[in-house]
Amino acid sequence: MATGYVFHPEYLWHDTGTSAGVLPADPTAGVQPAVHIENPEAKRRTHELIHLSGLLAELLVVEPRRATMTELLRVHTPAHVQHIRAQSDLRGGGDAGDGFSPVGHGSYDIARLAAGGLLALVTAVADGDITTGYALTRPPGHHATADTGMGFCLFNNLAIAARHARTVHGLARIAIVDWDAHHGNGTQTIFYADPTVLTISLHQANCFPPDSGWTHENGTAQGAGHALNVPLPPGSGHAAYLQTMHQVVIPALDRFGPDLILLANGVDANVFDPMARQMLTTATYRQMTRLLVDAADRLCHGRLIAAHEGGYSPFYTPYCVLAVLEELTGTTTRITDPYATIVAAYTSEPLQPHQQDVIDAAADLVPRITAPATTPTP
Amino acid sequence: MATGYVFHPEYLWHDTGTSAGVLPADPTAGVQPAVHIENPEAKRRTHELIHLSGLLAELLVVEPRRATMTELLRVHTPAHVQHIRAQSDLRGGGDAGDGFSPVGHGSYDIARLAAGGLLALVTAVADGDITTGYALTRPPGHHATADTGMGFCLFNNLAIAARHARTVHGLARIAIVDWDAHHGNGTQTIFYADPTVLTISLHQANCFPPDSGWTHENGTAQGAGHALNVPLPPGSGHAAYLQTMHQVVIPALDRFGPDLILLANGVDANVFDPMARQMLTTATYRQMTRLLVDAADRLCHGRLIAAHEGGYSPFYTPYCVLAVLEELTGTTTRITDPYATIVAAYTSEPLQPHQQDVIDAAADLVPRITAPATTPTP
Amino acid sequence: MATGYVFHPEYLWHDTGTSAGVLPADPTAGVQPAVHIENPEAKRRTHELIHLSGLLAELLVVEPRRATMTELLRVHTPAHVQHIRAQSDLRGGGDAGDGFSPVGHGSYDIARLAAGGLLALVTAVADGDITTGYALTRPPGHHATADTGMGFCLFNNLAIAARHARTVHGLARIAIVDWDAHHGNGTQTIFYADPTVLTISLHQANCFPPDSGWTHENGTAQGAGHALNVPLPPGSGHAAYLQTMHQVVIPALDRFGPDLILLANGVDANVFDPMARQMLTTATYRQMTRLLVDAADRLCHGRLIAAHEGGYSPFYTPYCVLAVLEELTGTTTRITDPYATIVAAYTSEPLQPHQQDVIDAAADLVPRITAPATTPTP
Amino acid sequence: MATGYVFHPEYLWHDTGTSAGVLPADPTAGVQPAVHIENPEAKRRTHELIHLSGLLAELLVVEPRRATMTELLRVHTPAHVQHIRAQSDLRGGGDAGDGFSPVGHGSYDIARLAAGGLLALVTAVADGDITTGYALTRPPGHHATADTGMGFCLFNNLAIAARHARTVHGLARIAIVDWDAHHGNGTQTIFYADPTVLTISLHQANCFPPDSGWTHENGTAQGAGHALNVPLPPGSGHAAYLQTMHQVVIPALDRFGPDLILLANGVDANVFDPMARQMLTTATYRQMTRLLVDAADRLCHGRLIAAHEGGYSPFYTPYCVLAVLEELTGTTTRITDPYATIVAAYTSEPLQPHQQDVIDAAADLVPRITAPATTPTP
Ligand SMILES: [Zn+2]
Ligand SMILES: [Zn+2]
Ligand SMILES: [Zn+2]
Ligand SMILES: [Zn+2]
Repeated sequence: MATGYVFHPEYLWHDTGTSAGVLPADPTAGVQPAVHIENPEAKRRTHELIHLSGLLAELLVVEPRRATMTELLRVHTPAHVQHIRAQSDLRGGGDAGDGFSPVGHGSYDIARLAAGGLLALVTAVADGDITTGYALTRPPGHHATADTGMGFCLFNNLAIAARHARTVHGLARIAIVDWDAHHGNGTQTIFYADPTVLTISLHQANCFPPDSGWTHENGTAQGAGHALNVPLPPGSGHAAYLQTMHQVVIPALDRFGPDLILLANGVDANVFDPMARQMLTTATYRQMTRLLVDAADRLCHGRLIAAHEGGYSPFYTPYCVLAVLEELTGTTTRITDPYATIVAAYTSEPLQPHQQDVIDAAADLVPRITAPATTPTP
Repeated sequence: MATGYVFHPEYLWHDTGTSAGVLPADPTAGVQPAVHIENPEAKRRTHELIHLSGLLAELLVVEPRRATMTELLRVHTPAHVQHIRAQSDLRGGGDAGDGFSPVGHGSYDIARLAAGGLLALVTAVADGDITTGYALTRPPGHHATADTGMGFCLFNNLAIAARHARTVHGLARIAIVDWDAHHGNGTQTIFYADPTVLTISLHQANCFPPDSGWTHENGTAQGAGHALNVPLPPGSGHAAYLQTMHQVVIPALDRFGPDLILLANGVDANVFDPMARQMLTTATYRQMTRLLVDAADRLCHGRLIAAHEGGYSPFYTPYCVLAVLEELTGTTTRITDPYATIVAAYTSEPLQPHQQDVIDAAADLVPRITAPATTPTP
Repeated sequence: MATGYVFHPEYLWHDTGTSAGVLPADPTAGVQPAVHIENPEAKRRTHELIHLSGLLAELLVVEPRRATMTELLRVHTPAHVQHIRAQSDLRGGGDAGDGFSPVGHGSYDIARLAAGGLLALVTAVADGDITTGYALTRPPGHHATADTGMGFCLFNNLAIAARHARTVHGLARIAIVDWDAHHGNGTQTIFYADPTVLTISLHQANCFPPDSGWTHENGTAQGAGHALNVPLPPGSGHAAYLQTMHQVVIPALDRFGPDLILLANGVDANVFDPMARQMLTTATYRQMTRLLVDAADRLCHGRLIAAHEGGYSPFYTPYCVLAVLEELTGTTTRITDPYATIVAAYTSEPLQPHQQDVIDAAADLVPRITAPATTPTP
Repeated sequence: MATGYVFHPEYLWHDTGTSAGVLPADPTAGVQPAVHIENPEAKRRTHELIHLSGLLAELLVVEPRRATMTELLRVHTPAHVQHIRAQSDLRGGGDAGDGFSPVGHGSYDIARLAAGGLLALVTAVADGDITTGYALTRPPGHHATADTGMGFCLFNNLAIAARHARTVHGLARIAIVDWDAHHGNGTQTIFYADPTVLTISLHQANCFPPDSGWTHENGTAQGAGHALNVPLPPGSGHAAYLQTMHQVVIPALDRFGPDLILLANGVDANVFDPMARQMLTTATYRQMTRLLVDAADRLCHGRLIAAHEGGYSPFYTPYCVLAVLEELTGTTTRITDPYATIVAAYTSEPLQPHQQDVIDAAADLVPRITAPATTPTP
């Protein structure tokens, strides 16, 4: 019944430097130094709210550990791991691969602690200590592919956790639901030919990475049908996301029959996020999480582990995460979303036809998912 | 031929306090102190970029002055002016009316300097010293009505400038174009029955203020037809805004025949803004400004004055304003938008039907605008 | 043997607003808004270092509670408590009394939680759950007198704790050692005529409050001799402070025979602090704490509770507090002061004659302390 | 009669990164990322206060240019210039030499603009356009030696300016007064054997660099006697500094008979500075500047150019610089030091014997200065 919670100050100390939003400072070319958009502020405020709300006291605090080389190499190439380590050893840090993904000095160790936070939760679930869990980690992971970091991600934390669940704990089928506003391209690619891991990504169409996450990306070889994408148009909100959950995500999970559900909990599809144009509120996150919890209860003994991904609004992110965590825990705290009345009206527009079209296209692919040969075992 | 530029450090010192985004801090209720979203950062960076780019050296720096009581009272009620003054006199400041619009200690004087910056530009235009101008002012103004501040606005700077142009400088017809992402409700209300001032607002439908800025709001009494609204759906971008300019704004200006065009240059419809969900880029702002400059050249001897309104992305706002200012000046600097390639793809989607519907509805109202009785005079 | 640790995110959320250092923002008079010097940064970084160092795992986390009205009134006047409450209820907060001590919205509750953090530690000591403890609280307390806040202090946390120890837990004699760089005037005044509480303040001469903390301030009536002050000249460092400990503080404690030692652990006498001119390093804080721990072991079963007071260097404060906490705990962590080599040379000057003069004058007063009538009881 | 003023936003964009005060971030070793102590904040606020006070309107704004390679090489070795350039070309920047002096990406160009700002002032003085001048530059310069940067300094701006004055403008004798709290070691070393440049440094004894700036460092070879040092003890204030001006600096200038006085205006000896332990106030800076202005009037047609050096208090630095600039300009603005009453008492202690000893030792060396062979020419 317990919910695990992973947090460590090192996550906040991952140093993304003085970029102006996402661009490295370049003063004489007109790019004034500032702060990278993926900075600790939103996550620090989130952790403090979780503590202050009283929720922390109801959680089982799980201590993270550093992922080992063996664990990293289940997902990443040796060259990539070595690259991150080398960049991290530089006094001023470096970049994970695309020029927008800073690796701070020492971030190799921190990134291993982020991945290891997820591993600790998976083990706690497998050991029966917890049924649900949340890892409030930095750096994020879902854009990292086997051989490169990108989109602020160094290692793919959730992919490493999924492989760990399969390899070490013998869980047969893993579903990864990713509702970060950006395409979970790294996770998808890593498992693209793997029938044992179902990836489902809800995201803003053609946002990041460019030209990635279309519906026709549906898995390959043995994994055909086991990658689902719902590229929602910019401006999509509560109605479109809930409809996607009901029409695509839950049916897909029901058909796949996972032994564990992993959630890439980027909350950057919220209505105040600077890095996307979606319109979700805490109410959306709450209801979506509730649907996942119910599915987990129905399908895999409630096993549901969430990893923190994107979320760049310092002031709204904390409430979005609190809503997710309250639902994972099955409780509510004394803290209510103070922005609820402000956003109630303008985020409530009905589902629009061009949104429904995208959802329908994704729903059409659900039957391609292979159902489990046997009933999942505890 | 000169372009005037108004800036003063007092604008940056307008103190909006420790709100968490827009909500006043309330620690024990879970609202951690932070920084108000309408803080100096984006504007400070904008001014520094204008200086560093070399553009400042090509502008005619116009010194702002404080708007007088007489000038404020041309637009606002005595009770409202007194309210702002009283809140400003409080040691810790107060609020302009809606609970989200901080009045810092001393902000009464600063707000008068903001309004007075516009007045100085109007006078410089009337005197023939400049033809175009930009006032990089804080606090903003377009939400302020005759009797209250709201939406971070204390006094309606542009409305005060328009009245000044009419009353003191005898300009017969003023057009106010407002492409801030939020409805220019204050300006609209102030001139709702006034046939001599045409207000046109492009904004995100039903964003802020709630339930304001619909197409059917079209002016009243003598001013019937002289208020235009284009409430574009969330997720609207370059194509929708350019189409609006071509199909609504420019035809409306041509029909109205203004003696002066005022621009409420909120740049919060840009693709990174946290306070709206639109998708404009510097290219959009550049092209929209170019269209306005051409209209001003054609209609009113080039007279075009822009007031800074919203714009909450610290890192992207400066480039949006630079694009506007370059077009006002008819020059380009050595600084190119460093985000151009990043946003090129995902902001380029074609005009969508539900956007076109809104534009059509607004365009249908253009013929209601009364053409000038006589040819505009210099 | 355990060491208790009190921390709560509300302490960090105490909102001291936009003062420029210590002066309230006053833009038109030339005081640009900034951040109050007593802001959360140094304390937040301290807590994160305690966690990251691994020390947190060795501490007994003690949950703070809000001090009750009865508990506050043991030290403060009803008028003062009511004043803080009323200022705290204001939407924008107010001031605790001297114009430099912001009371944020909701700070009344937070200040009660700060005082209550100390109370929880005192109770845990009295119950035998811990022998030493540290309360990383905000707002600070040592300048607050019975009837007013000042110097960033709202309620006198340590005085409330001392009265609680006396009244509720029956501890007969309390010693309060205050090595904050500023005079512990509030604590001194509250107990000035009280022979059961010995106050000893080491501070920079004539710094804050003005003209306070001279050697001749030595207690009155029944409390005569039970207030000690060591007003060290600006520029005093390791040698002067250690000499003071050996020649004044420890002899005074030995003579007084306390049942509990309370420590006002302001670390603003460190060499990087902006609010004083002293030159202490982590080595000084470590050695001074070791001397207090030894005295507590010798005199009162090891009972020693520290309250966080001043400390305004965001980057050096954490290491100073870590040193204190390591000594309280009797352990060392893997974290060594990274500034040690930088400051080693220039903080090592020998004791100077004008410093020794001050110390001698204070030492001369130690014999005036009344020794306990009976052996202290457990 | 005019006073020149050099400022450019590039100075503020010099990127010193995420050091924790002065130490590069090293998270897993316990050094949390923060902001380097030499960041733009204090200088930005200074410039804004100069503008807001009205003083900017009375100054002659002098446009800086980038120092040429020839100009840099008059002071620095080719290897050092090349090192700075190479570090600056790195995407994430590098370090100027000692590990505490960040070179941001692009800082090579900015550092040349800082040196060039001083060059522009020297030329304006030589051309008779101004008599006094202030360069509000970053990065600072006085610690940089011929072959390395250190102490946050990349190139020695003032040394380059002095050489320029000698070589290009034919000024025979240059005096450099340095009252930055730290030893002007770079400037001293560069001119240590040069009899045509007198260097005088007032600083905190043995602060930075370690073991540098003792009285016995008095010049060598031809330059014997032409380097003066006054290593004042920590805690020195108004009285000690004024005494030093009267007893050492002014007599030295009178004896030397300079054609131009350069001032290294570090204001980090002020009472709130985190990087030193001295106790100066705006009144001190005002009076010291007045003495220099008078000396310049008497000795060299008023020629006095100040370069901004250290000064790390964001809130007090602006007033210190304003005081200097008012005296250079011979005017006062409406802005009075708002901290004046706060610091009046505790910074007013009389000259102490151990301070006087240091001053006497320096004064004894003044007669070693060689008087000019001929009367200085205009
Ligand atoms: Zn994302
Ligand atoms: Zn807006
Ligand atoms: Zn203190
Ligand atoms: Zn210095």
